[in-house]
Amino acid sequence: MNDSDHDITATDAEVSQIPAKSLYGLTPKVEAAIMAAVEAGEQRRVRALTAPLHSADMADLLGRISPKKCSQLLRMLGDELDPEAMTYLDEDVLEQVLDIIGPEAIAKALPELDSDDAVTIVEELEPEERDEVLKNLTVQDRVFVEQGLSYPEDSAGRMMQREMIMLPPYWTVGQTVDHLRGVSSHDNQDFYLIMVVDTNFHPIGEINVGRLLRANRPVRLSEIMTVDFRSVPVKMDQEEVAMLFRRYGMVATSVVNEDGRLVGVITLDDIVDVIDEEAEEDLMALAGVSDASIRSSLLETFQGRAGWLLLNLLTAVLASLVIGLFENTLEQVVALAVLMPIVASMGGNAGTQTVTVAVRAIAMQEFSTQSAARFALRELLVGAVNGVLFAIIAAVVSYIWFGDIWISLILGGAMVINLVIAGLTGTLVPLSLVRFGVDPAVASSVFITTITDVVGFFVFLGLAALFLL
Amino acid sequence: MNDSDHDITATDAEVSQIPAKSLYGLTPKVEAAIMAAVEAGEQRRVRALTAPLHSADMADLLGRISPKKCSQLLRMLGDELDPEAMTYLDEDVLEQVLDIIGPEAIAKALPELDSDDAVTIVEELEPEERDEVLKNLTVQDRVFVEQGLSYPEDSAGRMMQREMIMLPPYWTVGQTVDHLRGVSSHDNQDFYLIMVVDTNFHPIGEINVGRLLRANRPVRLSEIMTVDFRSVPVKMDQEEVAMLFRRYGMVATSVVNEDGRLVGVITLDDIVDVIDEEAEEDLMALAGVSDASIRSSLLETFQGRAGWLLLNLLTAVLASLVIGLFENTLEQVVALAVLMPIVASMGGNAGTQTVTVAVRAIAMQEFSTQSAARFALRELLVGAVNGVLFAIIAAVVSYIWFGDIWISLILGGAMVINLVIAGLTGTLVPLSLVRFGVDPAVASSVFITTITDVVGFFVFLGLAALFLL
Repeated sequence: MNDSDHDITATDAEVSQIPAKSLYGLTPKVEAAIMAAVEAGEQRRVRALTAPLHSADMADLLGRISPKKCSQLLRMLGDELDPEAMTYLDEDVLEQVLDIIGPEAIAKALPELDSDDAVTIVEELEPEERDEVLKNLTVQDRVFVEQGLSYPEDSAGRMMQREMIMLPPYWTVGQTVDHLRGVSSHDNQDFYLIMVVDTNFHPIGEINVGRLLRANRPVRLSEIMTVDFRSVPVKMDQEEVAMLFRRYGMVATSVVNEDGRLVGVITLDDIVDVIDEEAEEDLMALAGVSDASIRSSLLETFQGRAGWLLLNLLTAVLASLVIGLFENTLEQVVALAVLMPIVASMGGNAGTQTVTVAVRAIAMQEFSTQSAARFALRELLVGAVNGVLFAIIAAVVSYIWFGDIWISLILGGAMVINLVIAGLTGTLVPLSLVRFGVDPAVASSVFITTITDVVGFFVFLGLAALFLL
Repeated sequence: MNDSDHDITATDAEVSQIPAKSLYGLTPKVEAAIMAAVEAGEQRRVRALTAPLHSADMADLLGRISPKKCSQLLRMLGDELDPEAMTYLDEDVLEQVLDIIGPEAIAKALPELDSDDAVTIVEELEPEERDEVLKNLTVQDRVFVEQGLSYPEDSAGRMMQREMIMLPPYWTVGQTVDHLRGVSSHDNQDFYLIMVVDTNFHPIGEINVGRLLRANRPVRLSEIMTVDFRSVPVKMDQEEVAMLFRRYGMVATSVVNEDGRLVGVITLDDIVDVIDEEAEEDLMALAGVSDASIRSSLLETFQGRAGWLLLNLLTAVLASLVIGLFENTLEQVVALAVLMPIVASMGGNAGTQTVTVAVRAIAMQEFSTQSAARFALRELLVGAVNGVLFAIIAAVVSYIWFGDIWISLILGGAMVINLVIAGLTGTLVPLSLVRFGVDPAVASSVFITTITDVVGFFVFLGLAALFLL
């Protein structure tokens, strides 16, 4: 946050142009210039070029370049790297950066960060590095970080920040404002909410800073505080915290421990990361990918994919076993082998459509018992309607191709059955998984495609065996 | 926002219990009680039960119940419905609610909302309803809403709110605070940012309310304002606005028109909705679903699915045509028909994995030219490694099954080739689509599964025709 006295007309001239590009500090040109300077080993030029960058742009740059270049750049920057930049790094880039700069530099950077960001960074360290970093901190900082780490991963306690403004209800607006003017908050941190607490540090009200500003000096905080507020338990999962923020359009919330004491604050900007993370998790889980970063190593990527492919191989073999039951039929009517993938493929796609909508609705907590039943019924009907529609099209196409009315009827019949099954299981599988406490995003797709493959092949070849031979 | 004088000890006792449930106002019990009262036609009871609900909970209730019940409930509530509740409704529920309450009630509700929320509501109305609603507004409100509607859909102009605090740089902190105390802002709206503008209304600085609070009265705004801020052009797409907020960890931003004049403000809470919307769009597009709500009608759902299924039928027929080329081979070795879906299925899954990671990275703007090349290379390698691994497993399984070493070798070879192709096209297809200006989420999956099906069948049966006969 650079503020300073400035020349109004100059800024004015700049602003009045607003080329959309200037919104981003790290243009391709700037990036190329920095990387050329790194390549050439011109430390002074590197520092001069990176100095005006927003720490988010610096983080972006570090994430975009190769690990080798990243290490060169960091060495050239040395102390000039704004610790703030680390808070914008993705987990895997952060790990890499921390490795390069080492424990001493980390310990020096931590006190300049909010406690939640400091915890995020210390989390990434190996145990021995962690100890080394912690012992270089002041007592208060160390306590903050260690307490943060004592809460479960992905809990409110890990996300919250300890720095907050906590005042008793009998204080007046005037006292509060004078107090705030006196506080030398580290790096002029922005804040939006004042917490009002009783003598046991239980939160009893919240005051938006804007409201405080508008109130008259003699008014007591208890008169202007909002009592209709929510406090989040420190162990609440971050996913649930995010749902609360979304649901109630919250901007910040207090966090309380088991005794109801105020221990921290979570703000909406922390929630945005959680929302992004979770959207990504669901997307990747449905596609059968774990560890999804584009920066993962070859080995990590391989590990993140192979498990799902192995499972898929097993289910594909299962489908083949079903086909194997009808070897005899296939030998006699080879047209069946040509057409059978159509039935399975259509079922798989229809099932994936239903599953995806259901998984998203579950993640966004949109289902009530009633609406889930309505959803299931609707999916069943859509499956039936689509089944009949595509059965007719497929039957006509296959009749033109093979000129055999029986094959066409069998293809159409199998299609209807498979699409109805797809609509039905596409709803029931994710809803049942939730009931058994399994994340539906992770397991649903494999269930559905297995079911639609097996049913598709079995019904199509089974009908053929019955009616053709 | 209810604040009032209150009994501290009572609230204290409540808070110190913090059962996680109490975080949500709409418990299943409350919901059941309300719905029972609606059923029984007890208007007074309905109003009493819903009165303490947060407007977000009311919105949630309206979305969860059937359209018929929703209409009954709204009629019983009448004027008691807090207009704020409409701002929490999903688009399709909002449409339904607006239909029920009618233009007169809407016109009465709008002035109580922020201008961005008012625009969102008027957007949903039919043209003639829109005119009726608009003519019932005050001149200022009407101008705000009409200007909002004049900006393109999903642009910054539609999202922004017109209410903001705009002051000249030569004002002192004292003047500002006194001014703010005097302003009777509608419904005590919370605000976080003060915009400093020059005489042409060009933004030249921003002041966080917390900072204003801490400054001394004689200090001029120009001395405490942040000049390192971003203004978003009014026509910028909401997706890009969301990326800017994420990238720079912003909490609010000013919006300027073509002349660089300040016209509105966008806050982070508006961005959360955009982020959710976009995550959903990508997820649904990858699964081939348009119009994804669990509340869509049967017809809408059918329309949102059939297009993709039709496309899939065409590509499935294409795959069948490839199989048809080898009818002769299949007739002689029926084991090939049994095994061929394995090759296609593995390729399809591996391709989907790669595509999904690529699409997400593109959506989050994570790719630079360099990192895209690295990504493509890594996916190719992972495809090769997985290909070899699963080729061995599949070959062993098929040898045990059919006891034919040639079939096993052919199966393995086809698997390696198909998984390499999957890794390669899984990267190239989405990246090329972006270059041609097509949303990769929408079109990538269908390309990939078509390629892996066609290649899978062709290579497997082609190798068989070459080596087996």
